[in-house]
Amino acid sequence: MTRPGIRTAGNLRGLPPALWDSRLLRACRGEAVDRPPVWLMRQAGRYMAHYRGLRADAGGFLGLCKDPARAAEVTVFARQWLGVDAAIIFSDILVVLEALGLPLEFVAGDGPRLPRPLRSAADVAALRDPAQAAADLAYVYEALRLTVRDLPADTPCIGFCGAPFTLAAYAIEGGGSRSFGRAKAFMYAEPAAWHALMTRLADTLVPYLTAQVVSGASCLQVFDSWVGNLTRADFAEFVQPHLAHLVRRLPAGVPVILFGTGTGHLLDLIAACGADVVGLDHTVDLDQGWTAVGGPGRCAVQGNLDPCLLLAPRHRLEAAAGDLLRQAAGRPGHIVNLGHGVLKETDPEAARALVEAVRAWRP
Amino acid sequence: MTRPGIRTAGNLRGLPPALWDSRLLRACRGEAVDRPPVWLMRQAGRYMAHYRGLRADAGGFLGLCKDPARAAEVTVFARQWLGVDAAIIFSDILVVLEALGLPLEFVAGDGPRLPRPLRSAADVAALRDPAQAAADLAYVYEALRLTVRDLPADTPCIGFCGAPFTLAAYAIEGGGSRSFGRAKAFMYAEPAAWHALMTRLADTLVPYLTAQVVSGASCLQVFDSWVGNLTRADFAEFVQPHLAHLVRRLPAGVPVILFGTGTGHLLDLIAACGADVVGLDHTVDLDQGWTAVGGPGRCAVQGNLDPCLLLAPRHRLEAAAGDLLRQAAGRPGHIVNLGHGVLKETDPEAARALVEAVRAWRP
Repeated sequence: MTRPGIRTAGNLRGLPPALWDSRLLRACRGEAVDRPPVWLMRQAGRYMAHYRGLRADAGGFLGLCKDPARAAEVTVFARQWLGVDAAIIFSDILVVLEALGLPLEFVAGDGPRLPRPLRSAADVAALRDPAQAAADLAYVYEALRLTVRDLPADTPCIGFCGAPFTLAAYAIEGGGSRSFGRAKAFMYAEPAAWHALMTRLADTLVPYLTAQVVSGASCLQVFDSWVGNLTRADFAEFVQPHLAHLVRRLPAGVPVILFGTGTGHLLDLIAACGADVVGLDHTVDLDQGWTAVGGPGRCAVQGNLDPCLLLAPRHRLEAAAGDLLRQAAGRPGHIVNLGHGVLKETDPEAARALVEAVRAWRP
Repeated sequence: MTRPGIRTAGNLRGLPPALWDSRLLRACRGEAVDRPPVWLMRQAGRYMAHYRGLRADAGGFLGLCKDPARAAEVTVFARQWLGVDAAIIFSDILVVLEALGLPLEFVAGDGPRLPRPLRSAADVAALRDPAQAAADLAYVYEALRLTVRDLPADTPCIGFCGAPFTLAAYAIEGGGSRSFGRAKAFMYAEPAAWHALMTRLADTLVPYLTAQVVSGASCLQVFDSWVGNLTRADFAEFVQPHLAHLVRRLPAGVPVILFGTGTGHLLDLIAACGADVVGLDHTVDLDQGWTAVGGPGRCAVQGNLDPCLLLAPRHRLEAAAGDLLRQAAGRPGHIVNLGHGVLKETDPEAARALVEAVRAWRP
């Protein structure tokens, strides 16, 4: 079973013309646009006072994820305040692990912690049922419905999830890591349990993302933030089959963006998973990356400004944006974004200035 | 002024034939060897009980760095116990920052901290004199003299330093970082102060590495562990001139290994700094990386096994080592190593098994 590519599937979901012809969705399909669409990963986040206020009202980060009205409010506010071409639903990739039965904590300043990480095949087998886990994430679907209701008719909302590898790595490490020693040791020592875990995750992500589409997401991004740490051989053996199987089962007619960082050595393999759009970070040259994923005729690309440029003097930020726009000009299928999420120390006005520079640009 | 390449300089330092014709130095010069040399970054480190004992005796990590007799002992012991083809002097890249006037702490489990990081041009200007800083690092030179005295006559000892970028990033961030937001913001906002800082660092590293050579180091490795986070444009503007200027001023006749991680997109630029050997991490395909640095005729390569393979079942580790050795076979100028340092959770027997697999291998 192969999911039809977004370039050939047509408007299967019957989107309103204004949405179907939005810059983001046209770019995902490799169609010409007046200027490239722009949005920013983590555009609703800690760098915004509005967000911090609502997070406090919701009792913290995880509380905000589970509060559909406030999650929708931060999503819609950030979209509107920045003037970006798309919203992305405010949530976190790790809520899926919590729904699968792993307790999850966010300690202020310290990032996420999973105090009962997976350490054995038995731990994997004890994870909850995928369909039940996806059903328990109803607060995400409700947040999406509220968001889509409040967005302009021509503005897509992107749904998202963490990719199987990145979620598995979090689940085994119990939090962030630099080397992924525990996750890789598990993968090498217990390949059957590893593949069972990846299967369980993908089986959860399919109904999870499908429900997001049903709730109004018109584009999907799969965050494989950590996959760039793998060798090509390990990616091919331990990750690619699961990622490809996940993408194939997602709803037809909805573009899928596969995102990772430090993936310069994996781009052809990632594109082969069936991505409509591949995310490139700032360590990948746009031309080389686009060639690696098959070129503009086959795959769109998203990126790839260094998030640290938002900490730079305005003239340098604008020069870098101009360089990127000129480099992509004339080739449809480019979505302007950072190579990774907005950093918390970012001045919101810098993010807005970047968006404004893209909006003002004409080829 | 251009430093003569190691392939043409000849035995300018008058090394004894056994050392000059050691596997490591031959491989650095791109000469044929019976089998590739092997050593491991951080081969003397926390994963070894012997090391932990001496570190405790020395009153901690920094105490061990400053205790020439014990530093030499961990260096020589690890070389001998593992059976590797080279020693690397036990030290830390950050002692240079301390010598330049920045207080340095190692908090157990937490990594290095610089409690008075650089935040302004005035802070840079207030750094100590390079020649004085290099002179104050006499404990490193003494450790080298003791090490070389105790090594077999055919076994090189590698001297090392942190590269200007990685040291500057530590000095500005005040410790480790994921995004290098502060370092890059400084670089973008205060380019003159940035270049002054890079100059001060390189001006310190030249006498520092030269004194290491005088004290017995017969090969030098420059650790630019973090440089892979830069874009090509930023590397070219903010780093490359300083790295090239550093390498040019190092003693002729001593091979220089330039090491970084995640540098797949920078390899041609790194090689152009005058490296005799370029380090490749596990995210770089050996063939592609070797081509990027100019091929075996121009540059040797070092690497590139994933350090996490030492946490894998033995059969998988040996298979990966075999794949690497076969991939490099027939092309002189390959030094077997990990792509990054040995992880602290590594079983020492796994490290020894890897070395044994390389030693047993014949093309």
